[in-house]
Formats: sequence, structure tokens, C-alpha cells
Amino acid sequence: MKTVNVGLLGMGTVGTGTYKILEMNASRISKSAGVNIKITKVLDKNFARAYELGLTDETLTTDPDDVLHNPDIDIVVEAIGGIEPATTFMLDAMNHSKHVVTPNKAAVAASYDKLKATAEKNNVKFLFEAAVGGAIPVLNAITTVLQGNEFVEILGILNGTTNYILTQMGEFGLDYDDVLRDAQAKGFAEADPTADVEGIDVANKLCLLMALAFDEYVKPDEIPTMGISKIEKDDLALAARQDCKIKLIARATKKGDKLIYGVKPEFIPLTHPLASVDNEFNAIYLTGNAAGELMFYGKGAGSVPTGSAVVGDIMQIAKTLK
Amino acid sequence: MKTVNVGLLGMGTVGTGTYKILEMNASRISKSAGVNIKITKVLDKNFARAYELGLTDETLTTDPDDVLHNPDIDIVVEAIGGIEPATTFMLDAMNHSKHVVTPNKAAVAASYDKLKATAEKNNVKFLFEAAVGGAIPVLNAITTVLQGNEFVEILGILNGTTNYILTQMGEFGLDYDDVLRDAQAKGFAEADPTADVEGIDVANKLCLLMALAFDEYVKPDEIPTMGISKIEKDDLALAARQDCKIKLIARATKKGDKLIYGVKPEFIPLTHPLASVDNEFNAIYLTGNAAGELMFYGKGAGSVPTGSAVVGDIMQIAKTLK
Repeated sequence: MKTVNVGLLGMGTVGTGTYKILEMNASRISKSAGVNIKITKVLDKNFARAYELGLTDETLTTDPDDVLHNPDIDIVVEAIGGIEPATTFMLDAMNHSKHVVTPNKAAVAASYDKLKATAEKNNVKFLFEAAVGGAIPVLNAITTVLQGNEFVEILGILNGTTNYILTQMGEFGLDYDDVLRDAQAKGFAEADPTADVEGIDVANKLCLLMALAFDEYVKPDEIPTMGISKIEKDDLALAARQDCKIKLIARATKKGDKLIYGVKPEFIPLTHPLASVDNEFNAIYLTGNAAGELMFYGKGAGSVPTGSAVVGDIMQIAKTLK
Repeated sequence: MKTVNVGLLGMGTVGTGTYKILEMNASRISKSAGVNIKITKVLDKNFARAYELGLTDETLTTDPDDVLHNPDIDIVVEAIGGIEPATTFMLDAMNHSKHVVTPNKAAVAASYDKLKATAEKNNVKFLFEAAVGGAIPVLNAITTVLQGNEFVEILGILNGTTNYILTQMGEFGLDYDDVLRDAQAKGFAEADPTADVEGIDVANKLCLLMALAFDEYVKPDEIPTMGISKIEKDDLALAARQDCKIKLIARATKKGDKLIYGVKPEFIPLTHPLASVDNEFNAIYLTGNAAGELMFYGKGAGSVPTGSAVVGDIMQIAKTLK
């Protein structure tokens, strides 16, 4: 059986999850893809995590070119996060005829057009299923099974941290600051939670959903965005009295030829399927002019759930390299 | 732009939906697939419905060979329903090098191994996304984005008729017979509802989910199956007192190397995401060893929603014929 070689940039949360899945499910993966998939080079600044996973110095490097310009590598997984150097690395890999897979919503949203054009120019695949909704297979659904639809509307709960905070505030009548501190202590929120709580992370994900569903690329900083840091427990109590929950919603609606979009906290009636999406779960609620209403629900973050989507993308590319 | 020619067997509910979507979304479909997709031959016994849609005699035929052996046709959509002659037609089309798409769960479940082997032998694609969950893109998710997972469990509400009946009985405290008669009058249930209410339709769908997710083909008549015709309104009241709803659940669970499966009415706690799937909606709740818990929710039946999945399959094949 042929081996497809993967180069991994960054052994952080998602890189680790990806590596673990390729190990633990190796036999199913080879059987399903028809090829063996092997991580043959890993770029990191610090090898501590890689050593813990049993990787040896032969596989590890601190020089990006050992991955990006490596003639043996077929697919590059960019799991460094952040905009740079991630974007430069992805472009460089594509220009060296490597397929690219990434969970990096910030980088893809910031340079979607350039990344897409560079992939097309080099005739390589560029997949980023894990960038929206973690394990939830929504991007692939939009571009395959649902591609015969004109999309009417997309609503998403796309950030687990803010959904966890809003759920806890609502369920236990707690203050925003207290829940945030608790979430930080439990590792559900970052030390600097700005990108999550101010809706920036959600705007990046909405940008990608709109690009694929409506074929309109709106830069994330052009998406009207309001986070949850001003929400008080009284707001949640008011919502509850109106049989609603407050959710941080990404919304894009087609009105005639115009696309209306934004990210903000909204009152969602308890009867709406999105109202039951609580805590760290994410969901995307789509309406297509043929499929009607659809909802996709699952884990929007986490090492192994996000790695699941990265591995799915790797396998789809690997199948074409048989 | 190249034209991909589709032959349609049967202008019934799903055939009509498929035709309508290809017409109404034609420009999006050509743009996304990179080819024009045209239904060039339609087989039916009676042309009344086809004439209503504007089709002319040039396109219509009563002779299956005009589709199955037609050298100009690339993809055959089998939308006749039932096991025969649908199965013979699909095999014949594959043996004449045509790709096959079908929403026909009964036929695919009854002869999955033979249909799959015949498609492989002839190197043609065989897709049946619409056969499970109508518009819900679950089969494609299992075979693409989620293919790196070992599946742990699948639960499904896979039949809109029975879910509608159970929802109405529970919400309004009605008797089974009264709701069934009402559903028949409204067109939500067939004159002979046996395949729906006795769980046979659900067993066919579970068979297909298991074949793809667990790589185990269990013939539908070997799946322990119990329907809803013995459910009384008192059962629903008892469930409600226990904070549950009764749902007709298809379930497959991996215990070690063994797959446990069956179809039967179950008490589902109100806190479970499947409990909020009411009336004609369907949902599939999956657990993968990497992705964790995922739910897919949407319209499991209907002309245009089911047609949406057929068109998605046609487009995926058409893209490879550019």
C-alpha cells in the first residue's frame, strides 16, 4: 500500500489531536483511504510535547523549509495558529505543489482569496473543514451534498467559550466576570479571552461560511461584530421571561441579491433548535432553497474533535493520491 | 461548458423534486459543478406529470433501454422506488458504464453488496445520500469528513411519518388511530402505512448507516424491528411523567468487536438533543471516537428536500466528468 506523507506545522492542541487520531485509528484510516498516512516531519519550536507522544529527532525540525520544501511531503497541515507566519507557510507549501489542510480560521479568513487563488494556480487542494465548528462537517456539506441549493440563511453558534459562559450565566444566574474567571480556571477560556468574547473568532468563521455558501468573501473586519462582554445576568433573566435564551449568533441572510450579515448576541426562542445548543457545543442552522432547514450540532473545539476534521481533510486528499 | 447528461427513471415525488431543483438553481449548479447538468431522458409509465413540468415527447420514454443503454447518458437517477425493477435497472445501468444515483433505501438496503460490487467492477460511482434522512447530508459526512473516526454509536429518528404521529399523540393526548387517519388525510402518511409504522423503512435506513459507518452489511430483515402501532397515549403520558418523549429510534452500538442494532420505540430524556426533533423532522445522532457527539437535523422526506440530496450526488459525479 502506498504511503502518503504529511508534514505537520505545529504540535499544539490541534496538531496533537491530529497525530493521536492517525495513530489510534490507523487501520481504519488505511482501509478507508486505500493508502497509509504518515506524519513524516513535524515543525515545532519546542519538542517536549512531540517527545511525549513518542516522536523522535529524525521526524522533528525547527526549520520550516524541512517541511515546506521537502520533496517527500504530499500534504502540509498548518496547525500553528495566528495569521503569520501561518499564511506565508501555507502559500509557500502550495507554491511547492503541496496540498494544504488547516484548522486556522484567522489565517484563512484574513487571506481567503489569495490562499484559494494560490491553491488553484498550483493545482493543489486546500481544505479547512476544522476551521468552522471543529468536528462538525458543515463546510464539506455546503460544498458537496448541498451544492445544488441557493442558500437563504445561515445561523451559527460558533464559539464554545462564549456559549459556555452564556449557558452558565443563564442556568445559575451568575455574573459574566465570575463565569469567565471560572472558565479560565477550567481551561475553557484563554488567559486573554478577547478574540472569543468580543466575537472576533466567530466573525472569522462566519466569513468562511459566507465564502463557501454564498460565494461572497467579506473580510472579517468588515463584518459588524458585537461580543458578549456587555451581557449582564439581568439580560439573561429578561430573555428567560420571554421564553428565550441569549446566544452569540453569527447570521448571514440573503435578501434578494443582497447579503446581510453580522455577529451579535440574540434572543433565541426556546422552541428554536439552536436554543438547546448549550455549553461548549456549537451548531450551524442553515436554510437552503431546496433542502429546507438543516442543523449540524457537535463539538466546536478541543484537540481530538478538531483533529477529527483535519484527519478527514487529509484522507480526502490522500484518496486522490492513490 | 461541457454538458453532463442525466437519465431519470421515474417522475414521481423525488424525480419531480430533482428536476425542479436542476431547473430553478441551474446557474448556481453549472457554476459550482463546472459543467451543465441536463436531464435528457425520462422514463415513466404516464407522462402527465412530465408534461406539467414542461417536458416534451422527445425527452420522454416508456422503454427503460432508452435510458439504460443510451450512449449519451452519463448518470442514471433511479427514482422509481420499490425493490424491482429498480434494482435490475441500476445493475443494468452500471453494466453499461453509467454512474448511478438513487434515493431508494429499500432497493439499496436489499442488495447493497451486489450493487456496490457491480459499481466497483464497472468503475462507476454509486451514491444514495437521499436514501437516509432526505436532505440531511449524513452519509457523505460519514464517508468523508468523519472517515478518520471509529464510530461508537449511531442513533436515528429516520422516519417523518412515525415521528409526526408520536409528536401529535404526545402533544395533544390523542390516540394512535386518530392521528394516523389525520396524517393520511393530510398526505403525511400513506394509504398503506405498514412500511412506516412497523419500522421497515427505518430498518432499511439503519442498514445503510451501518454499512457505511461500521462497514457491516446486515440485511434489513435481520435487524430486530418494532414499530409504533402498539403505542398508546398512556405510554406517551408515562414517558412525559418521566421527563421523556417516545421516539422510534434506530440504534447501532459497537461493544468491543460486536455491533448491537435494532429499531424500536424508546424513552428519550428531554435533555437529549434528539428529544427536540419533532413532527416530520429527522435527525441522526452519531458518536465517533475522535469527533465525539454530533447531530444532523433536517427534513427527512418531501419532493424538493430529497431532491436536494439527489442533485448533490449528481453534482459530485458531474464534477469528476469535466
